[in-house]
Parts: sequence; structure tokens; C-alpha cells
Amino acid sequence: MPDKDVAIVGVGQSAFVRGYPGGIRELCFEAYREAMQDAGISSKEIKALIVCCAPEYDKQRSPSGLINEYLGLNPSPTFMVESLCSSSTTGFAIAYSFIKSGLYDVVCVLGFQKMSEITSQDVQERMGRGADVMWESPYGTSMPSYYAMYAQAHFANFGSKPEDLALVRVKSSTYGQLNEKAVYRKKVTFEQIMSSGVVSSPLKVMDCCANADGSSCIILASADKAKEFSKKPVWVMGVGQSNAPMNLASREHMRGLECARIAAEKAYAMAGVGPQDIDVAEVHDCFTIAEILAYEALGFAKQGEGVNLIRDKETYLEGRIPVNVDGGLLSKGHPIGATGGSQIRTIVLQLRGEAGAIQVPNAEIGLVHNIGGVGIYGNVLILGR
Amino acid sequence: MPDKDVAIVGVGQSAFVRGYPGGIRELCFEAYREAMQDAGISSKEIKALIVCCAPEYDKQRSPSGLINEYLGLNPSPTFMVESLCSSSTTGFAIAYSFIKSGLYDVVCVLGFQKMSEITSQDVQERMGRGADVMWESPYGTSMPSYYAMYAQAHFANFGSKPEDLALVRVKSSTYGQLNEKAVYRKKVTFEQIMSSGVVSSPLKVMDCCANADGSSCIILASADKAKEFSKKPVWVMGVGQSNAPMNLASREHMRGLECARIAAEKAYAMAGVGPQDIDVAEVHDCFTIAEILAYEALGFAKQGEGVNLIRDKETYLEGRIPVNVDGGLLSKGHPIGATGGSQIRTIVLQLRGEAGAIQVPNAEIGLVHNIGGVGIYGNVLILGR
Repeated sequence: MPDKDVAIVGVGQSAFVRGYPGGIRELCFEAYREAMQDAGISSKEIKALIVCCAPEYDKQRSPSGLINEYLGLNPSPTFMVESLCSSSTTGFAIAYSFIKSGLYDVVCVLGFQKMSEITSQDVQERMGRGADVMWESPYGTSMPSYYAMYAQAHFANFGSKPEDLALVRVKSSTYGQLNEKAVYRKKVTFEQIMSSGVVSSPLKVMDCCANADGSSCIILASADKAKEFSKKPVWVMGVGQSNAPMNLASREHMRGLECARIAAEKAYAMAGVGPQDIDVAEVHDCFTIAEILAYEALGFAKQGEGVNLIRDKETYLEGRIPVNVDGGLLSKGHPIGATGGSQIRTIVLQLRGEAGAIQVPNAEIGLVHNIGGVGIYGNVLILGR
Repeated sequence: MPDKDVAIVGVGQSAFVRGYPGGIRELCFEAYREAMQDAGISSKEIKALIVCCAPEYDKQRSPSGLINEYLGLNPSPTFMVESLCSSSTTGFAIAYSFIKSGLYDVVCVLGFQKMSEITSQDVQERMGRGADVMWESPYGTSMPSYYAMYAQAHFANFGSKPEDLALVRVKSSTYGQLNEKAVYRKKVTFEQIMSSGVVSSPLKVMDCCANADGSSCIILASADKAKEFSKKPVWVMGVGQSNAPMNLASREHMRGLECARIAAEKAYAMAGVGPQDIDVAEVHDCFTIAEILAYEALGFAKQGEGVNLIRDKETYLEGRIPVNVDGGLLSKGHPIGATGGSQIRTIVLQLRGEAGAIQVPNAEIGLVHNIGGVGIYGNVLILGR
């Protein structure tokens, strides 16, 4: 049985799209409205708003002040939090502490990113400056090239192959088709993936997730408030956070992402469970290789053996440990600040038995794995009902 | 007696300067080193690092990952938090919750800003985009012009005058001379202030604080850890946060900053004290008028009567309620993300009896008032020994 101190009482998400026609306030409202309707509460219940995003994709600085105003949440406080692609699970950890500490009893975690206001090249430039601007990004590193190095290392160390990566995308597309909020909803075949153009060897176009515009929203509440609001609260069992060096040159090895492994260790310890207890998981598959690395970091497979899970379809809906059965980042798209919240939403719907076509039967404990940058920020959450 | 759950066990600050010669990592290290030496602990004690700054002044995105690495804090987690000029008191509130909730037992709050990598004009452009980029900043609003409107409103509503504002700067310069870490250390006279050029009427050059490069660092710990580390812990008694609309057009009045008034109300309620119990205060005097507004928001004076405090020298060291006796932002300079931490440091030194020439005799309870943007983000802290 999970500790029943802090609950999730509402979840929402906008559609993730390639060119959202409104501004950031309308985009944020889409997820907020859905989460608030889900929670069945009014704005006056919200005691703090945590806005999660990575700056410089759109022009608005300090977006939390703007969004708090637009959502009618003043005079309750707000601020922005950033850990690159894991900003909204970082915000979630803060919200957990706010409630557990007694400072606030209902907290809204709102993640968003509007990436389409600038060109794809400029997005890459921004992402580049999310690495060390003195010692690494001037040499032309980019997100695909970083993860390509991890893929090459995995191939060299453990004998995994490009075909294994393609299998991850096949699974993603199997479920992406079912997700109305995903950017990519077409079935893609193994052959299409294998013949897609190389971005950074061995990663091909279809090994990479897409930039997107989107928002996500999670409402957390104290046990007392959760009883008042919700028939199906989902409880926070474990929160694990860890960081690894920003510079790849400072890392001890390339065999996996240490920040994820340590974050998972912490989250399992706090929750008092292990990998074998997880019924359903959402992992940060920004690239196909990242999902394989996640299997290993989370203990779903031993190091180097992650590929067996996808070869044996163990991470499909019918498998031993269903992973990313909402399509993952590869199908949904990856609006940086919104991604973690979208993962949390999927797990919450699973634990409530409301996941529809992708429901894992009788799911009791779920896990979220959300990574910022190339294994810089690791965030793992364990949720239970 | 304050609740003794969360303590401050170390404080540090770099010199605030106009053109720091190093990069952001060296700048951050300056405050970190001082705080860690003050706490007398090693880096392995730090369980989380909260980096507080406003993005886009220097090129590095996601600075927390970089700084965590430079300070040798991996694999413990880090992230960035932003609420414009109040980022480090926001970070402090998060650190308080992390410790009180039991998630982490020792947390480092590191605020910094390096503003000198871009021109002063570009700094104004960045600050402009900290207002609503759709409805306000395109019309040329700037920080001085916003606060000038508040000054004009105060003059019109309450009969205060430019001379009252000048008195605030006279006090600031009285104490700025004593502060080795301040940007401005020369005595300025009433006549010099009154004859300085107009920036945005009625605010003159000497009514405005200066951009600066700087860092600040605060180490917080649980009661158990505080006992282990520190002979003179300072306890967190009250944490108040509130927001007001980003758009000035959405505010109900211009008579004062509601976000500060409500944040103070919350902080006093949590601490179980009132304005009369505060022995020493640091307030956000980004402009001279802002200090007058702070007196009123904090209940040191009734609304409209703040000017009496400065006319009667009640906020001098010898007065009823000493305010900004370290020189305040007006003398120290205002490196956005570092400012709140610098204020906290001053109060901690006061409560420990280590404030030297500016020591308020027997100070037991101190207050920090830190504002983000033009009264968008309000943060008030009450600390006690």
C-alpha cells in the first residue's frame, strides 16, 4: 500500500501538434481546462502554480506570471522551473514537497512548450546551448549526435543493432495510432524505419522524436483535499531525482544514463517497491536508443539486455512490463516542458482504469521516467492507487 | 520561539560588480565557497542544488546542470527556478519545502546573474520581455517607467514627493559605503540625487538600482543536520508568496504592490508574528519608490504614510525598524537571480550577531521582502534565531 499523503486528483493534456495556432496562454489553458474538469474543482482551490518549460523557444520571458494571470489564479503564487526535457517532472517533485510540507494543499503543475515560433534550425541551436556553451556546443554537438554516441556505445558493448532500435519505433507506432493527442498517428513499418534517412549514425529520422507544441497539467492535493475532490486519487509513492555531468567528457562511461539509474534507485527505495512491482511504465524515448537505455536503468532488464525486451515484445501491452503504450515521445511528439506531465497523465489514467484501448488490466503501480538533456537530469516517479 | 524544523546553516555572496571577468561557473563558485566555508560542510552533504536566475542574460541555457557539475555535486539533483528578480527567494521557499517534507535534508540555493555579457540596451530588452510581450512590452514599457507610474500614483494619492525618494537613496548610500560587496560605495548627497538626470519622471538616475554581476548562496538544513553542523542556526519562521497580474492594466489599483502585501500577510501568519516584532528588514528597493511601497506593504507604516519612516529616519540603524542597512539594491546593485539570497545573507548575519558595523543590537527576528518584476512576484520570508 502506498503512503497516502500526496495525491494526483486531476490530469490534462493538449493535443501535441506541429504548429499550434494560438499563443502560449491559450496553449496552456487547453491542458489546464482538461485537468480542472477532471479534478472537478474551481480555480480558487489552486494554492500555487508551477510552470514548467525550457526558455527561449518563444519570446515571452517569465511565462508563469502571464499564465497565472490568464488562468485567473492570482493572488496565489507561481514561478517557472526548468530542467530541460524533464521540467514537468521536476515541477512535480516540487509540488509533492509543497503539499507534504504543508505549505500548500493543492498545487497545479503546468508544463508547456511552443516550439513552432522559431525554425527547426533555431530549435537545434537552442538545444545546443542546453549543453556546455564553452566546452561542448561550439563543436557542433546536437541532441541526435549525443544519443547516437550512446547508441554506438551500446552496439559496441552489448551487440545491439539498428534493427533493435527500429523495433522500438514499430511498437511506438502501434500505440501512437490509438492516441488522439499524438503528432504521429500513422502506422510505420520496420522497413520504412530502416530505410529512413540517417540523421546521426546510427540514428535515422524515424529513430528520433519530433519537436511539437503542447501542454500538460497535473493537479496534486493533500490527503484531506483528495478525499474531498476525488473518487479515484492516485498516490505519489516515490520521487527520485539525480544529475549527471552536463559535459559528456566528464562521464565515467557511455553504457547507460547514470542519472536515470540513480533516480530509479531513489524512487524505488522511497516507494518500497522494485522493478518487478511495476505494472506499467512511461519512459523518455526521445530517441529509440533512449528507450532501450531506460529498460536497463530502471531494472526491467539487466545492463546490455534491454534489447531482449523489445525483441520478445515484453514491453507491448500484452507483455511482462508494458512501456509507452500511449506511443511515447516518438509518436506523441516532444514539447519539452509538457512531456513529463503527459507521461504522468498516461500513468494516472492507467491506474484509474480509464486508459481505454491501451488499458493494462488491473494496473496498480506505475512508473514515469523523464530525462532532461542527454542524461543530464534524471527524474523517476512511482505512482500507485 | 520559531518552529525549529528548517534552518539556514550557511550563507555566502560574491562581490556584486559591473563586469565580472569570469564565466557563470566561476561567479557561482564565489558565493558557494563562502557559504560552504560558513557552514563548515563538504559538498557530499548537499542533497539538492536549486539554481535561481532569469534566463537570456548569458548564453548558457539550463545553467543548473553546468553548475552542479562544476561544483562537484553530481549525482545529487539540480534544476533552475525563475521568478524574475525574486528567483532566489522562490528557490528558498522550494528548499524549505524539500527539507520540511523530508525529501532532502540539506539543500543549497544558489542565485546568480551575469548581466554584463550583453549591452545595457539589451538588458532593457530582456526586462521588457519579462512583461506581457503581446499586450504591454511592444508599447515600450520598461522597468523604470513602470515604477515611475507607481511613484506618480503615490505622489497623487498620498502627497509624497521626489524629495522623499531622494531620502531613501541618501540612507542607502550611508550604508552602501560600509558594504565591501556593493557596486556603489561612494557617499551621495541629497543634492546630487535631486540633480541627477531624469530616467522616467519622477525617477532620476539615482533613484534606480544598477544592473550587476553577482551570486549568492544559502545552505538550508533539517533540524537534525543543523544541530550537527551549526552553532548558530537561523530558523525559517514564515514563507509567504503571492502573485499579481503581469499586465498593469489588470491591476485594481496603483496604490501599492498587492503581491507584497499578501505575501507579507501569509508570512506573518505562518510565523505567528506581526510587523511590530521585526527587528531588521531587507526590502526590494530596485527603485527608491519601491522601498516606500515596501514599508507600507509590510505594515511598517500605514498605506500612504511610508514616507514618514524615511523622513524621521526610523529605518536607519538607530531607528524603530532598520531597513536595508547593507545598502540595499540601490547601493549593492541588482544581479537579478542573486538578489534575494544577498538579502537573506544580510538578515542571517544580523540574527547571528555577525553584521559588524551595521549590526542591529540583539536582533531576534528578521524579514526579507523580494519582488519579481513590477510587483508580479511577491516573496516575504521571516527568519528567527
